[in-house]
Amino acid sequence: MHETTPSATLSPVEIHLGERSYNIVIGGGLLGSLDSYAGLPHAKTALIVTNETVAPLYLQTLADALKGQYPVVGQVVLPDGEVYKTWATLNLIFDALLEQGCDRRTVLFALGGGVVGDMTGFAAASYMRGVPFVQVPTTLLAQVDSSVGGKTGINHPLGKNMIGAFYQPQRVICDLDTLKTLPERELSAGLAEVIKYGPIADAVFLDWIESNLDKLRARDPVALAFAIRRSCEIKAHVVGADEREAGLRAILNFGHTFGHAIEAGMGYGQWLHGEAVGCGMVMAARLSQRLGLIDAAYVDRLTRLIERAGLPVVAPVLDALDNAGRYLALMRVDKKVEAGEIKFVLIDGSGRAIVRSAPDSVVTEVIQASCRQ
Amino acid sequence: MHETTPSATLSPVEIHLGERSYNIVIGGGLLGSLDSYAGLPHAKTALIVTNETVAPLYLQTLADALKGQYPVVGQVVLPDGEVYKTWATLNLIFDALLEQGCDRRTVLFALGGGVVGDMTGFAAASYMRGVPFVQVPTTLLAQVDSSVGGKTGINHPLGKNMIGAFYQPQRVICDLDTLKTLPERELSAGLAEVIKYGPIADAVFLDWIESNLDKLRARDPVALAFAIRRSCEIKAHVVGADEREAGLRAILNFGHTFGHAIEAGMGYGQWLHGEAVGCGMVMAARLSQRLGLIDAAYVDRLTRLIERAGLPVVAPVLDALDNAGRYLALMRVDKKVEAGEIKFVLIDGSGRAIVRSAPDSVVTEVIQASCRQ
Repeated sequence: MHETTPSATLSPVEIHLGERSYNIVIGGGLLGSLDSYAGLPHAKTALIVTNETVAPLYLQTLADALKGQYPVVGQVVLPDGEVYKTWATLNLIFDALLEQGCDRRTVLFALGGGVVGDMTGFAAASYMRGVPFVQVPTTLLAQVDSSVGGKTGINHPLGKNMIGAFYQPQRVICDLDTLKTLPERELSAGLAEVIKYGPIADAVFLDWIESNLDKLRARDPVALAFAIRRSCEIKAHVVGADEREAGLRAILNFGHTFGHAIEAGMGYGQWLHGEAVGCGMVMAARLSQRLGLIDAAYVDRLTRLIERAGLPVVAPVLDALDNAGRYLALMRVDKKVEAGEIKFVLIDGSGRAIVRSAPDSVVTEVIQASCRQ
Repeated sequence: MHETTPSATLSPVEIHLGERSYNIVIGGGLLGSLDSYAGLPHAKTALIVTNETVAPLYLQTLADALKGQYPVVGQVVLPDGEVYKTWATLNLIFDALLEQGCDRRTVLFALGGGVVGDMTGFAAASYMRGVPFVQVPTTLLAQVDSSVGGKTGINHPLGKNMIGAFYQPQRVICDLDTLKTLPERELSAGLAEVIKYGPIADAVFLDWIESNLDKLRARDPVALAFAIRRSCEIKAHVVGADEREAGLRAILNFGHTFGHAIEAGMGYGQWLHGEAVGCGMVMAARLSQRLGLIDAAYVDRLTRLIERAGLPVVAPVLDALDNAGRYLALMRVDKKVEAGEIKFVLIDGSGRAIVRSAPDSVVTEVIQASCRQ
């Protein structure tokens, strides 16, 4: 079916959310092109938020492009890494906004990966109770997932993304050229979120990913453009139907419940988010199998694909004495928990996901089977 | 006209904001009445946020009433005062939410004055990207102003309320009995916001306040109920027309631009918010006069009323060498500033307000005239 890749078009992907609608533009050379910023809100000041890793690569290009549109273009460079997704780092953005005299019209630009995007978005949601912002994601993970959909926030020592806001950007600008400098490990982490869209929403896309995984890992621009576009389309559809995660949107968290336990249990930043999600998808598939939704062959197929993407498929032991208990305790502080019951995203093998709880005993079996070497 | 006080009815004041609509109930004995909480969202847990001063007075009454509706009723007691309206204090709420296993349905109850309400509201807006909350204001200022309208937030060292969200409560419960324990100084601070509604929106209400100020200061329950009700009606009308302060809502900031400079310049907590607003209204009236909008008699009338309410009418010197410069600098970090221009709320003497900028030279004259003994 999708054995050959449809040519990537440059028409934007639309996110339909009424007055909060916006679009995602995908293509090469977007960062330095003035067209990318046409039609954004007018203001006296723009503030670029980025990190130490991305700044030397792309900050100047973005700043130069924005100077055509904003009289004052400020910047703030954050430390790099999930471990810095904290209030203290967020406050560096507020400090910069206030020290640089930014007002209610100031437009924030998030230049970087998911951490920069999540923190900049929450800063934009909260500064003077809300200023506009634009996502300029420079990692595959951010381009296909975190920059789209309006989830913003920071971590709390007791839980990931526990503090934040639903706050939509004005635009998402995905410049494919920024992926050229992405470390191998980060590319794999992004592929985890691309793979995710197959089992939960599009069986044909899963076939396509299987056929094109080598091209994606080799950063073939046509394959990457298609994968990003299709991922964004699926996410746009889901978010458009359920902006505030009252129902359908939860399916986007396939692999994330186990994944969050891995991230929290290992300490944020030890495993990349995408790595934890990759391994979490293997665990969620196993749980789906034990609950009779899919067969062992489907679990094997998904596990092989995740492994081929360069992602871990064996879960870490989080507690030598009571490993399953530790996983369960960590999963119980997940946001999807209601009245103490963990909600898992499960798959049925036909490109559809369902959200339901599962007996602790079955979850424990899955954890034990997944951590064994 | 309103020389005699209309009897206070107990029908709620409605805030019309589409799906975010809610109502304000005003009356005696509401805190301990189960009826006050009927129809609020169901949840396994409720969390009461209050402070050290209010907790010994009313926490048990509220907790007992909520136990009829929520299986688990948690609590967190914050230090009292504007100086604690910081991220560090806000984080005590997040710690309590996470430590007590609160989920996405948990309902927060803000029991206290404006600081408790603003911080609890922002915590509710941000915890898991949004949980429901209820305002239970126990000061006059919170009952007539801060608990209504959905402005939430915390202070930043460089500016008041610079970090926050527009986030509406599910209900506002104004129990008149809680005003019996309110210190005299706090009662006066609340009267500043009551007085405010006259010059900006209702000349007849201003007449009524003048005639009934002694009753209000003596805490006559009928007079207080009417003043709270009329204040909430005016605020509800303004907020319903402009939830996110794009235009009309700014008139509610009459006296607040000068007032914020006083609060920030003196150090938060030195002057109560209402005291700074009271003095700020005198300054804004003087500015209105110098710009030809009102006559000296109106300025005198308003000044006398503010003084009779027990509020300061002489502005503090914030900088011995360049006092006006210091005021102007502090006003330039106000949220209403756009492109460096300070927006003042001015009055025309007929119960209407307008928002406009003013020449620095005229503002300087007002500051000099207002600080002179």
